[in-house]
Amino acid sequence: MAVFSEISSKDNKYLKYVSKLQTSAKFRNTEQKFVIEGLRICLDAMQNHISFEVTLVSETFYDKFKKESEVFFANSRLNFKIKDSLFQKISDTKNPQGVIAVAEIPENKFVFDKSKKYVALDNIADPSNLGAVSRTAEALGVGGIVLTNDGCDPYSPKVLRASMGTILRMPIFVTDNLPMLIKSNNIRAISCVVDEGAEKIGDIKFNNGDMIIIGNEANGVTNDVKDASEILITIPMTGRAESLNAAAAAAIAIYELTK
Amino acid sequence: MAVFSEISSKDNKYLKYVSKLQTSAKFRNTEQKFVIEGLRICLDAMQNHISFEVTLVSETFYDKFKKESEVFFANSRLNFKIKDSLFQKISDTKNPQGVIAVAEIPENKFVFDKSKKYVALDNIADPSNLGAVSRTAEALGVGGIVLTNDGCDPYSPKVLRASMGTILRMPIFVTDNLPMLIKSNNIRAISCVVDEGAEKIGDIKFNNGDMIIIGNEANGVTNDVKDASEILITIPMTGRAESLNAAAAAAIAIYELTK
Repeated sequence: MAVFSEISSKDNKYLKYVSKLQTSAKFRNTEQKFVIEGLRICLDAMQNHISFEVTLVSETFYDKFKKESEVFFANSRLNFKIKDSLFQKISDTKNPQGVIAVAEIPENKFVFDKSKKYVALDNIADPSNLGAVSRTAEALGVGGIVLTNDGCDPYSPKVLRASMGTILRMPIFVTDNLPMLIKSNNIRAISCVVDEGAEKIGDIKFNNGDMIIIGNEANGVTNDVKDASEILITIPMTGRAESLNAAAAAAIAIYELTK
Repeated sequence: MAVFSEISSKDNKYLKYVSKLQTSAKFRNTEQKFVIEGLRICLDAMQNHISFEVTLVSETFYDKFKKESEVFFANSRLNFKIKDSLFQKISDTKNPQGVIAVAEIPENKFVFDKSKKYVALDNIADPSNLGAVSRTAEALGVGGIVLTNDGCDPYSPKVLRASMGTILRMPIFVTDNLPMLIKSNNIRAISCVVDEGAEKIGDIKFNNGDMIIIGNEANGVTNDVKDASEILITIPMTGRAESLNAAAAAAIAIYELTK
């Protein structure tokens, strides 16, 4: 049986809390909470043992998905049912499904498993690219994604949406020192660069335990990370190099890494 | 010396014409015209011998880019300078650069060159995916892109933007009968499918003259096109197949095709 409160004012403190978590990466970091929206992604989060602090459902959602609502409520500390019009105001999408949860950011702990292969994104800036890389990484069986903390926040609504929820299903680790992480775990790091002098990606034999690194969209892999890499590789191109975007380069690199 | 008229009303017939071309694929098809916006893409179009019917620049753009404006005006039948506030109304972006051109859709003619490799998209629906595939195709040196006419319009503002202008630099051909095009040109067609029984993409030796086919995001390659294909190939996956999106699959397929 559902235990929930109703909210009827847009000035309610929980609605304001959700809104601040949606828009501020800093606030997400301080609170160690983030916002997920939509039925599928909330189910994904639950399946991955992410606990909810707050769950908000619209009246229409509750009527339509009573069973699912009850499951979410049971996984959540505070539960609210709100008017559809009010839900629309806090929703991040034009046509909201009617469920939003405030969830705990998973523990940020890197556990290196030598039997798996890894992808690191060095200061990736575009949420769509991070989301796309996460999708490809899951499909092709990457063991985990390492992100530098100067890139975009994996728990932003844009990244979560672009990743189709895969961000919640993949092991994600954010580091403030990627070269150190590489060295201390004794990882063979392989950086993708745009440089005709680098080794061709097709000539490399990848092994379990390898980590492939994709750089920032405009500036590529940073020098410190290149220095910590054992090999620099490149995707041979005959056309304009600037045409290959980071997500496409990552798809090719992950394919070669995992095939 | 510039020859241009000024427009001061949003009800001007040329502004309405631009707006209709931006929003209606049917109208673009009837008129055989499309709209391009932004300095870089207009320069790209000119370099690719696409002629302009109408060029519209904002007052600020004209003051800042007089030389470029003159070049566009010389390539265009009708030229207009308009108030910034009016330009904002017809712009497809939040922060317009201040130049829009109505351009001729390039002639839709497929010339098969056996020394090149091709990509066909069978009913691709998402403009972002088409744009992304076009970028990858240019970077990796694909000879041309064939599209079925039930997919998204390559001359829509969304596709042009997502493609970073590469759609105007690549040979693009839209067909209403892809199986017929394959047969009449005697092309070796290779369809990418999600099917563990298909041949692994890494096991295929690709040749010049080959055409690789990527299907619709939800439904894959159609049966008629599969039947017209010599080989069905698949990208081996260990994770969830639905995670690999069409643009990532295309990046991997194009990489294998052209490497």
